[in-house]
Amino acid sequence: MSKKYFETVELDEEKHAMVICNQTKLPCCVEFLSLTKAKDIWNAIYLLQVRGAPAIGVSAAIGIYVIMRPSKGTNFHEFYQEFVKNKEYLNSARPTAVNLSWALTRMEKVCLASKEKSIEEIKEILHQEAIAIREEDIAVCKAIGENGLTLIKNGDGLLTHCNAGRLATVKYGTATAPMYVGAEKGYTFKIFSDETRPLLQGARLTCYELNEAGFDVTVQCDGMSASAMRKGWINACFVGCDRVAANGDTANKIGTSMVALAAQRYNIPFYVCAPTSTIDMATPSGDAIHIEERKAEEVTEMWYKKRMAPVGIHVFNPAFDITDQDLITAFVTEKGIIYPPFKENFKKLFEK
Amino acid sequence: MSKKYFETVELDEEKHAMVICNQTKLPCCVEFLSLTKAKDIWNAIYLLQVRGAPAIGVSAAIGIYVIMRPSKGTNFHEFYQEFVKNKEYLNSARPTAVNLSWALTRMEKVCLASKEKSIEEIKEILHQEAIAIREEDIAVCKAIGENGLTLIKNGDGLLTHCNAGRLATVKYGTATAPMYVGAEKGYTFKIFSDETRPLLQGARLTCYELNEAGFDVTVQCDGMSASAMRKGWINACFVGCDRVAANGDTANKIGTSMVALAAQRYNIPFYVCAPTSTIDMATPSGDAIHIEERKAEEVTEMWYKKRMAPVGIHVFNPAFDITDQDLITAFVTEKGIIYPPFKENFKKLFEK
Repeated sequence: MSKKYFETVELDEEKHAMVICNQTKLPCCVEFLSLTKAKDIWNAIYLLQVRGAPAIGVSAAIGIYVIMRPSKGTNFHEFYQEFVKNKEYLNSARPTAVNLSWALTRMEKVCLASKEKSIEEIKEILHQEAIAIREEDIAVCKAIGENGLTLIKNGDGLLTHCNAGRLATVKYGTATAPMYVGAEKGYTFKIFSDETRPLLQGARLTCYELNEAGFDVTVQCDGMSASAMRKGWINACFVGCDRVAANGDTANKIGTSMVALAAQRYNIPFYVCAPTSTIDMATPSGDAIHIEERKAEEVTEMWYKKRMAPVGIHVFNPAFDITDQDLITAFVTEKGIIYPPFKENFKKLFEK
Repeated sequence: MSKKYFETVELDEEKHAMVICNQTKLPCCVEFLSLTKAKDIWNAIYLLQVRGAPAIGVSAAIGIYVIMRPSKGTNFHEFYQEFVKNKEYLNSARPTAVNLSWALTRMEKVCLASKEKSIEEIKEILHQEAIAIREEDIAVCKAIGENGLTLIKNGDGLLTHCNAGRLATVKYGTATAPMYVGAEKGYTFKIFSDETRPLLQGARLTCYELNEAGFDVTVQCDGMSASAMRKGWINACFVGCDRVAANGDTANKIGTSMVALAAQRYNIPFYVCAPTSTIDMATPSGDAIHIEERKAEEVTEMWYKKRMAPVGIHVFNPAFDITDQDLITAFVTEKGIIYPPFKENFKKLFEK
């Protein structure tokens, strides 16, 4: 990697501010936001200025610390009341984002566990917990990268879909972690990024971050990934995931399952990069995963409200799809690589 | 079908003009162009105001007649010289479009065969030949529709990709022919149209024409077709083709092969609607078909020049892909339905 690049969510220790890159402006404009006020941090999460499950969790942790730091509460009761109010406020920015409530609850727990301490001490405990959550995210992604790197070799062509990249985490990403960790060791890769309709996270975000980091990047429309594979350009596919069922069926950004079908056709390994926290043993299979449908205009109107499909038609716009477990070569987790049979091997993983 | 809809290329017998719907304005605006001048007809073909191989052929035939009708040539030599000049001019609008040169050559042949006749008689022969080419296109598409209709039943969910519709022919289309012919007989269908990136012919043209004709139409991004199949919504896929090799491998709009892979996964029949003129027995397999790559901006810039991917990356933008013959259930031609083994059965078809 030839260039230095920013981390997605940082804590400015001098200004006691959360610093993010405004992802709604990418790839045309790189704008950093330095946020200290609850309203601005809520907006950043609500408006997708920061997005990606892990990055949202870290933002919530740093955000609630930054908001509470100037608290004028003089006793625990006052301080905690203010904390809960802000916690609930931040959580309302994206109520279905699991990592958001997970990080806020974790911050609340250390707050409650410190009720005998002084307000200044509690503020420092929140500070340390926010830093810990951020560091843990980096460590999990780096471990995924190191494990994933054992599956590929220098010079490989790698295909990814959507953005399970650095911009969705603090650093490294999940699907991109083997690429970044490899680059740190001097490997080069040829990366193919599906544009990922309708919201183009691949073209806008993955291509941006990998190009910025100095990789050789090629963008292609979603219908072109089989053609790149047929040409022999792709040695492995790496994708992220939103939820993994106990049998290995995987919910990820819409279009992922079609990449997996093409990979199977051309005998190309298809790897899902998954922090173990996304493996949900309470969900037996993909059929039990509810797939959210999003608004029609994402498909019918291109950017800037220009209508590209006639009025009066229906629109099918599922946010995710299910990739069946038999299409997945292995899961790359921070604890190692999990091969089939997934059900048995996931169980062993969680029994450790 | 509840509404009356226009035919793609018509001859206005009163004004001696070629009438087309300007497809570059769809789906937002329905604009008809009445063209009589060589420059305007050339522009219509060059600017894709009329597009689709069959529609281009018919436009060339009607176009050259309309251009030659007011000719002041007083003998065959003068008339023919003017004909050749205009023929070469029209052919230069899209030099690689096979149907363009095919139709112009056919018009030239009847012209040459009539050299002993009066100029007025030759003009009438060109008139009749243009009408014949147009009527033959309608007849071929209608026969494809009637044959295709035997493969489906009333109420079926049908998926198509790109626009192999009425707008690419005079009437009926190829992939859409079973739908239109079925509708004439009172059938209803639920049609799913892939938007077809990068140029969105599915969203812009297929959805427009089917909606206009009164069908129940759903648009989806290309990465969503497997999800629609997984839900059990699709009973059959119908696509068009640009060239079919002797073994059945089929070149069609980019993304087609990924639809075929998904259809195979979900045991959904995948039909290629092909006038027998697109079956090229001189091409042994898909590997022998050259796939044209188009300009990067089609992918990186959405409509109206707004850049959606960073500067500095590569772009893979093949216009077509190859669907391997083993993924194709059958070819629907005007002469009947061709099942595997395609090589043997194509030979029998052409020996008839």
